[in-house]
Amino acid sequence: MRRSECAQIAMMLEVCAYPKPGNVDRCHDYDDTWLEHFLASAILARPAFVTAETGAAGMGACIKEAVSLTAVHRGGNTHFGAYLLLFPLIMGDGIAGAQTVIAETTTDDALRFYEAFALTEVRMNKTDDLDVNDPESAQHIRDEGLTLRDIISYSAPGDMVCREWSNGFALSRRVADYLLSAPNGKQAIVRAFFSLLESEPDTFIIKKLGREAAEWTMARAQEVCRGIYAAEEFDEECLERGINPGSIADITIAGIYLALREGWDWESCRRA
Amino acid sequence: MRRSECAQIAMMLEVCAYPKPGNVDRCHDYDDTWLEHFLASAILARPAFVTAETGAAGMGACIKEAVSLTAVHRGGNTHFGAYLLLFPLIMGDGIAGAQTVIAETTTDDALRFYEAFALTEVRMNKTDDLDVNDPESAQHIRDEGLTLRDIISYSAPGDMVCREWSNGFALSRRVADYLLSAPNGKQAIVRAFFSLLESEPDTFIIKKLGREAAEWTMARAQEVCRGIYAAEEFDEECLERGINPGSIADITIAGIYLALREGWDWESCRRA
Repeated sequence: MRRSECAQIAMMLEVCAYPKPGNVDRCHDYDDTWLEHFLASAILARPAFVTAETGAAGMGACIKEAVSLTAVHRGGNTHFGAYLLLFPLIMGDGIAGAQTVIAETTTDDALRFYEAFALTEVRMNKTDDLDVNDPESAQHIRDEGLTLRDIISYSAPGDMVCREWSNGFALSRRVADYLLSAPNGKQAIVRAFFSLLESEPDTFIIKKLGREAAEWTMARAQEVCRGIYAAEEFDEECLERGINPGSIADITIAGIYLALREGWDWESCRRA
Repeated sequence: MRRSECAQIAMMLEVCAYPKPGNVDRCHDYDDTWLEHFLASAILARPAFVTAETGAAGMGACIKEAVSLTAVHRGGNTHFGAYLLLFPLIMGDGIAGAQTVIAETTTDDALRFYEAFALTEVRMNKTDDLDVNDPESAQHIRDEGLTLRDIISYSAPGDMVCREWSNGFALSRRVADYLLSAPNGKQAIVRAFFSLLESEPDTFIIKKLGREAAEWTMARAQEVCRGIYAAEEFDEECLERGINPGSIADITIAGIYLALREGWDWESCRRA
C-alpha cells in the first residue's frame, strides 16, 4: 500500500478498534460525532495525503487541505491531532525523514496551519496567546518569522501530540513497536492503546476536564491492565463522565501508520 | 461530493448500518471477513471509481481495477455485486445514463469482467456454462461477440443484482426513494434494507442455501417489520444458520449511492 493508503487504513483501524474507553469505536457514537464521521474523514482526506506523498505542497498547506476536505460533514473535527502526526510521517516517509521535514517548516506553513486551525473547533488552552481567532496572531507569526515547528514547540509542554514533533515521535514509535511485536493483528490495537493510557496522562483530557480526570483515567487503565477492572465497564464510565482520551487516539493512529509501513499484518489473526 | 466519493461513502454507510440480519455490520464480523475488510475495500477502491468518473476506461476494465485494488486484503470478495451496480451508475451519472452505458458495453468489457471474476470467489450457480475458470468461456465470448450486457442478462433470471441492469435499477431506486423520503438520516438505511428483505427473496441466499432459506428469511423479516420479532434476535438466528443476504446488501449500497447523489442527508438525525 502506498503511504496515503496506509494513513487512511490507520485511521479506519483505530476508530473501529473496540473497546477504547471513552472514544468513538464500532460500538459507540457520541451524540454529535459518530463512527461514520470518523470513517468519512478517513475516506475524504485522501487527496491531501496524496499531496503530501508526492511533495506537491508544504506541510501547512497539506494540513489545511485535509481539514477542508473533511469539514464537509457535521461530525466536527475528528482527526486534527492525527494529521499533525501523519503529515510529517508521510512527507518524510518515516520518523527520521519526518524530523528533517519538521526542521524545514516555514512561516508559510505556520500561517496555513493557523488557517486550518480556524476551520476546526480544536480545544486550546485559554492561556494561549497565539489565538487562532485573533488576526494579530498571524501578524505576530509574520513579524517574528515563526515557523510551524516554532508554533508546535510552543504548545508542546501541554500537548502530547505536539511533543511528538520534538521527541522523535516517541509514543507513536512505542505503539508501532507494540503492534509489530504482537502476534495477533488488529486486536493488538486495543492493547497498544491501553499501554499508553495506563502510562501517559492524556493532554486532551487535561485541557477539557483537568489533570485530576487524566490521573483518574490512568489509574483505571492500570486496573484494567492488571485484570481487576473490566475494559467495557471502564468504557461506560468514561462515556458517562465525558472523558475521551483523544490525544492518545491520535498517537495510536500515527503508531498504526508506522507499523503498516514497516510491514505489520493487521489481519494476522483470523477472528476478531 | 464527487461521484467516486459518494460510492465510497455509500459502501461505508451500508456496512456500518446496524442491525442488518446475517450480514457484517458494526457489531458483527464473520470469522474470515470483518467490518474492517469492508471498510478497507471502500478506501482502496477509490482509484477505480475515479477511472469510471473520468471515463478513462471501459466498464469491464473499471470493475477489474476495483477487484484488483481490493484483493490486497484477506477478507475475500466484499463488494463484487456492488461494483456491478456502482460502475454503471457512476459512468452514466444516474439510472438513465447507466442504461445507456450498459447498452454500449462491448466484448472487451465482457472479457475484462471475466478476468475480474476470476480474481474473486464469487458464488456462481453450478449450472452456469460460462464458467470463469474455463478458458473456453473467453473463447466463446469472443466467438459469439458477446457484450458485458449479454453476460449479465444471462445471469439475470437467478441473480437480483444482474436483474437491476435490465429493469431500470428498480430495487436500487426503491432504496433511494425510501432514503430520500425518510426523516432521519442514516437510521433509515436499516429500514430500507428491511423493506427489500421482507419483499424480495435474496438470490445470494438462494445460491448458497436454496430457495427455502430465502423464503424463511423473507417471512422472518416480515415479522420484524410487523413488530412481532426482534431485529437483533433475527440477526443472531441468521448468523447461526449462515444466512447472509449479500445481494440485498449490494443493492442497498447502490440505493445509498443514488440517494447521496440526489441530495440525501445521511446526517439529518443527531443521534444514532
